[in-house]
Amino acid sequence: MSVLPPIARRAHIPPFIAMDVMRDAKGLAREGRSIMHLEVGEPGAKTPRLVREAAMNALEQDRIAYTDALGSPELRSAIAQHYKDKYGLDVPASRVVVTTGSSGGFILTFLSTLEAGQRIGIPAPGYPAYRNILKALGVEAVEIECRAAQGHVLTAEAIEAAHAQTPLNAVLMMSPANPTGVVTPASAIRAVADTCKRLGLWLVSDEIYHGLVYADANREETALRFSEEAIIVNSFSKYFCMTGWRVGWLIVPERLVRPMECLAQNLAISVPYLSQVGATAAFRATEELEAIKAGYARNREILGNALPAMGLAPLPMDGAFYAYCDITRFSNDAMDFSRRALHEAGCAITPGLDFDPIEGHRFVRLSYAGSEATMIEGARRLKTWLR
Amino acid sequence: MSVLPPIARRAHIPPFIAMDVMRDAKGLAREGRSIMHLEVGEPGAKTPRLVREAAMNALEQDRIAYTDALGSPELRSAIAQHYKDKYGLDVPASRVVVTTGSSGGFILTFLSTLEAGQRIGIPAPGYPAYRNILKALGVEAVEIECRAAQGHVLTAEAIEAAHAQTPLNAVLMMSPANPTGVVTPASAIRAVADTCKRLGLWLVSDEIYHGLVYADANREETALRFSEEAIIVNSFSKYFCMTGWRVGWLIVPERLVRPMECLAQNLAISVPYLSQVGATAAFRATEELEAIKAGYARNREILGNALPAMGLAPLPMDGAFYAYCDITRFSNDAMDFSRRALHEAGCAITPGLDFDPIEGHRFVRLSYAGSEATMIEGARRLKTWLR
Repeated sequence: MSVLPPIARRAHIPPFIAMDVMRDAKGLAREGRSIMHLEVGEPGAKTPRLVREAAMNALEQDRIAYTDALGSPELRSAIAQHYKDKYGLDVPASRVVVTTGSSGGFILTFLSTLEAGQRIGIPAPGYPAYRNILKALGVEAVEIECRAAQGHVLTAEAIEAAHAQTPLNAVLMMSPANPTGVVTPASAIRAVADTCKRLGLWLVSDEIYHGLVYADANREETALRFSEEAIIVNSFSKYFCMTGWRVGWLIVPERLVRPMECLAQNLAISVPYLSQVGATAAFRATEELEAIKAGYARNREILGNALPAMGLAPLPMDGAFYAYCDITRFSNDAMDFSRRALHEAGCAITPGLDFDPIEGHRFVRLSYAGSEATMIEGARRLKTWLR
Repeated sequence: MSVLPPIARRAHIPPFIAMDVMRDAKGLAREGRSIMHLEVGEPGAKTPRLVREAAMNALEQDRIAYTDALGSPELRSAIAQHYKDKYGLDVPASRVVVTTGSSGGFILTFLSTLEAGQRIGIPAPGYPAYRNILKALGVEAVEIECRAAQGHVLTAEAIEAAHAQTPLNAVLMMSPANPTGVVTPASAIRAVADTCKRLGLWLVSDEIYHGLVYADANREETALRFSEEAIIVNSFSKYFCMTGWRVGWLIVPERLVRPMECLAQNLAISVPYLSQVGATAAFRATEELEAIKAGYARNREILGNALPAMGLAPLPMDGAFYAYCDITRFSNDAMDFSRRALHEAGCAITPGLDFDPIEGHRFVRLSYAGSEATMIEGARRLKTWLR
């Protein structure tokens, strides 16, 4: 007699293919297969000791309680100081919003800037959760192609063209980019910021891979330098090796602080206490973090030499810890290519389809956040397999 | 020339008045005023030692990394076992979804069951974040009154009447309830579950105050006993004294597991690692937790005797750690009453308006989660002030 109520359409979100690859890779490993993990976008290193010690002290001494919804005053100040130290920018702590990872930051950002039914331009290829969070929140994601002709970055011209076709309400950019590793030059960020101002669009800049750039000439720049109205999304997950802590931050214009506070009070109450204590200490862990980064730099050299030699041409490996490779010489089906790389070569890699519904079928992403031994053996296996 | 893009209407969410009260109370305390804190819905006790030790071990030994989006297998199993131990119910671990606090659980629940524009019946009075999260997600909250005539609980009859007026898609119930402390009898939960099944409505049962009931006759019951289709929301924040850890859980029907997994992968990636390790240990901390609960029971006695004597009639103080008091004898303006209680009597209490847009102006909420000394002195001050 009774009818089951239906599952909401907005929950019909595709899975992360990268996560399915990881699950399959774990399954093979359990069966005793040796698997080289090149699929995960997660630092292989432990969280720095200073961060772990700060959390241990808090566990001994503090009541692990709610903090202010916008974050602890200590962490907000430390983040503000980071903008002074790293970029020479004065950012008042009042404009810092501490979030539960960049994930929490995106939810606050999209809800406070975009109505259901509005449109935001996002880069293709790009981080798949953008598209999926936006779908859940009823916002239309407009894929703006970032190809070789655009230097693989989101350009002011491409934004203008997309907006002319059907008006946008916001634009999202990312540098260094996932999955491509490409860094957007400062001049291009400035042009994007100016274009957004002129067209009256929100600008969201995902800077989660800041800190992970390997040549001075490519140094990453924050969109904040070119626009006080830009919303900056960042996190302690990547450079600071704190994925499992789920803590990130936003820098937002003053007029967004109070709406975001009310949203955060209701949607999250507060960001995890221990993670905030740890994050406050993370800015002092530079020595350990730079040593970890030096390891990524060595890994980058290894893959940067090996991949082109085996016919997998990576995009410019400017930053983050990814090599995004054109596989056209071997296949036009990245899903099948990745599955075979896993089963035949014992190398877990991610098909580009996660990141790019348009051209992703001819790309794969390799992460070099793992160990040097994994890079060397992974490259050896792929080379043998591709012959 | 440039026009600033507008803030989204769906971000125009009212603040928690309770949080504003807390801020004012802290301000007065900084000025040297002695303030009795009866406003916070947060245990005064530290997180149990076993939980903190488990987190310390993880900090020493583990890479604090992403877990599966649905939660660590250990925690999901421990939660499933909890249903066996506490309720005698067999719940497979596959139906357990670990969430970033109950907040994260509500976001997953509402997104996966309700389209924008659909309607959910919620109790009035009730937890204000329900209304506000729903607004941000475009779902219409229909206030269903839970008054003396209904025994202060959500009844099957009231649901049926609301549904007859304009069709609902879901119903949310809470027992023990915030702010009232009232426990819904098992028979009434069964009637609600049956009604939801018959009408084809989702049933969401917020059981975050389970474990905090002070008389055997009132023992809380889970809606899961009466419906395999019910979505159970729970958390480690209240009974387990883990507010700042931000970890909770859902029990969901099998058909919701995969949609929720995809949503969680994109909206949260994973729940904080240390919090999951701590939560897994929390089920072994019964001795310490029952001692804390015995403190609430003493506080409840103190307020339960003092409040009626001073003319503040509380609703039945069955569970949670709240006394929800009718102030009609003194005032019809709970906001003004609370402000004066803070400034004139040095007692921080929460006006009912947060919880109930209809009748909240003549109620205030007192929390007895603080220390016994706070209860005694708070009651003394209020009594003197009300004379």
